[in-house]
Amino acid sequence: MTITHATGYAIKDAKDYLNFELTKYELEPLEDDRVTVNVECCGVCGSDHHTISGGWGPWETKFVVTGHEVIGKVVEVGSKVTEFKVGQRVGVGAQVGCCGKCKSCKGTNENYCVQPVHGYNTKWYDNAEHQGGYSTHVRAQERFVFPIPEKLASTDAASMLCAGITTFSPLVRNGAGPGKKVGVVGLGGLGHYAVLFGTALGAEVTVFSRSDAKKEDALKMGAKRFIATTEGFEKDLQFEFDLIIVTASSSKLPINELLTTLDVEKKLVFVGMPEDGLSNITSQALSGNAAALASSHLGNKQEVLQMLKLAEEKQVKPWVNVLQMKDAAKAIQAVEDNTVRYRSVLIQDIEA
Amino acid sequence: MTITHATGYAIKDAKDYLNFELTKYELEPLEDDRVTVNVECCGVCGSDHHTISGGWGPWETKFVVTGHEVIGKVVEVGSKVTEFKVGQRVGVGAQVGCCGKCKSCKGTNENYCVQPVHGYNTKWYDNAEHQGGYSTHVRAQERFVFPIPEKLASTDAASMLCAGITTFSPLVRNGAGPGKKVGVVGLGGLGHYAVLFGTALGAEVTVFSRSDAKKEDALKMGAKRFIATTEGFEKDLQFEFDLIIVTASSSKLPINELLTTLDVEKKLVFVGMPEDGLSNITSQALSGNAAALASSHLGNKQEVLQMLKLAEEKQVKPWVNVLQMKDAAKAIQAVEDNTVRYRSVLIQDIEA
Repeated sequence: MTITHATGYAIKDAKDYLNFELTKYELEPLEDDRVTVNVECCGVCGSDHHTISGGWGPWETKFVVTGHEVIGKVVEVGSKVTEFKVGQRVGVGAQVGCCGKCKSCKGTNENYCVQPVHGYNTKWYDNAEHQGGYSTHVRAQERFVFPIPEKLASTDAASMLCAGITTFSPLVRNGAGPGKKVGVVGLGGLGHYAVLFGTALGAEVTVFSRSDAKKEDALKMGAKRFIATTEGFEKDLQFEFDLIIVTASSSKLPINELLTTLDVEKKLVFVGMPEDGLSNITSQALSGNAAALASSHLGNKQEVLQMLKLAEEKQVKPWVNVLQMKDAAKAIQAVEDNTVRYRSVLIQDIEA
Repeated sequence: MTITHATGYAIKDAKDYLNFELTKYELEPLEDDRVTVNVECCGVCGSDHHTISGGWGPWETKFVVTGHEVIGKVVEVGSKVTEFKVGQRVGVGAQVGCCGKCKSCKGTNENYCVQPVHGYNTKWYDNAEHQGGYSTHVRAQERFVFPIPEKLASTDAASMLCAGITTFSPLVRNGAGPGKKVGVVGLGGLGHYAVLFGTALGAEVTVFSRSDAKKEDALKMGAKRFIATTEGFEKDLQFEFDLIIVTASSSKLPINELLTTLDVEKKLVFVGMPEDGLSNITSQALSGNAAALASSHLGNKQEVLQMLKLAEEKQVKPWVNVLQMKDAAKAIQAVEDNTVRYRSVLIQDIEA
């Protein structure tokens, strides 16, 4: 018998965005290529806060159940699903569907689909609403469901599916590995993964931060160097880095200065999302070393699988705080207060 | 007997930047690795106008003799020069020296030297002043002197050494060739070369311009399509281009819109140099297709030689207006008035 409803912690009003109400709602249909997952735990992402507080604009759905770092068990599969079986432990990240028809989808860039279906506050092509993982169940296209390697704890794997892959994909697409120098700007949930995975891939990682406050943590995570971005910090670093990943979401970052620390034709990949634009980028700052300012969105399936395998093999252990799902408001408040060290994960507590 | 002086058309005051005065001045020393070139003709670049008018700030030298698109004959070589002989026809572009010691120089990126010596208004490492090609003679390190293929006319080859290579290098470094779609934004001196060389390399070129005024010219140069950047122009072009080269120098370009027309992980390379920054770039505009905003500076020696060879083989013919060198002010005025179609070249007229 097909599951028709989920129960989740919903926000009903962006002005009252810490008021999670346990709510029963209809799931999107179980189509041929979809998998239903019974949620075991779910990571808490900065996007959750941006969305429920209305910081990224009005909602697409009537209410919002956030959560796009889901680990759980397969409880149903559509008739054409070949990759998964009921009972299998899987993950679902910040994208649950793609059109399957565009150039990106036909290749291996489904994460750059022209019309992606995101992890929550989103509608499918037939207008059915999709909600996220602060809940009992989520549904996703098979292409966006990932088997979880046995040795990875669910609470460790959860946040890899958004924060992890968001940094892992630009790392591997830009050649991070032995002999390469990678700069990571900002040490939050994303930044800490950039350090962990950059190091696991064999690159030499340098963390840039506004102050020395997180220096000890950065070095524990595997960074070789920590640089506070005070006046003139870039002077001794010209042409130094093969890649810089900016995980901070401020628009006041010293981007032009950071750009000059890149070696020739290398990229600064912005994965933070400041609500205002990146002002004052000068073509002069980009031309002295042919630097590129780029961004990135999640990763493709191959990269997610590669990341999970590497995490298992190299025992990559994220720094997570585990809470009950009913404490979602506490977790969101910690995001707002910038006190998360370095990711929160919510454990299922909704009675079946 | 070593040549000690050159005579050139000099600007002595940025406030009086159309007043070229025939002036005799001391050349930098002929060091072991330098070549002295007797100027036959010299292209007129937008940089010349920016510099003499003070638009790019105060000068480094007492007066300025512009011109960094030089064709001429070798008249002297330093004791360690192996590549050139007296009498040979050669070109000198917008860089005449490099440190030879930095990572870029030790590799093949001397155009990204940490301390390049530019084509004029510049000082060597020993503080000797270097001036440009609106003159009888220039000196350059052997590495920045290029043999000119026999079938290329001097007045055609001249402007390839700055305008040409500025677009050719990002074209080849970003894979422009058969099956690739290249966008060229702006049709001036640089833009016209981007069309000519993009086409010669086998790419399909689309020109973007504010209005339809230059459509006919663009198509004659080899462009397959011409698109006026009116409201919504980008809507039907999502994920279309493999590379975009922006040759316009305005800060009001629709950069975010252009970025969305790139295929996944492709570059928009800015070779224009607006005096104000590139405002309002959003990381959101970059993330949907992992686009990169980049820049570029000239090209390395291999690329210059490849360009000149291609120009000879494919009979790439730039659209140039030939003037006498004494008419430099007319040529500069035309740059200011934006009436050049599409490059001016000055022919030597200074008596020996």
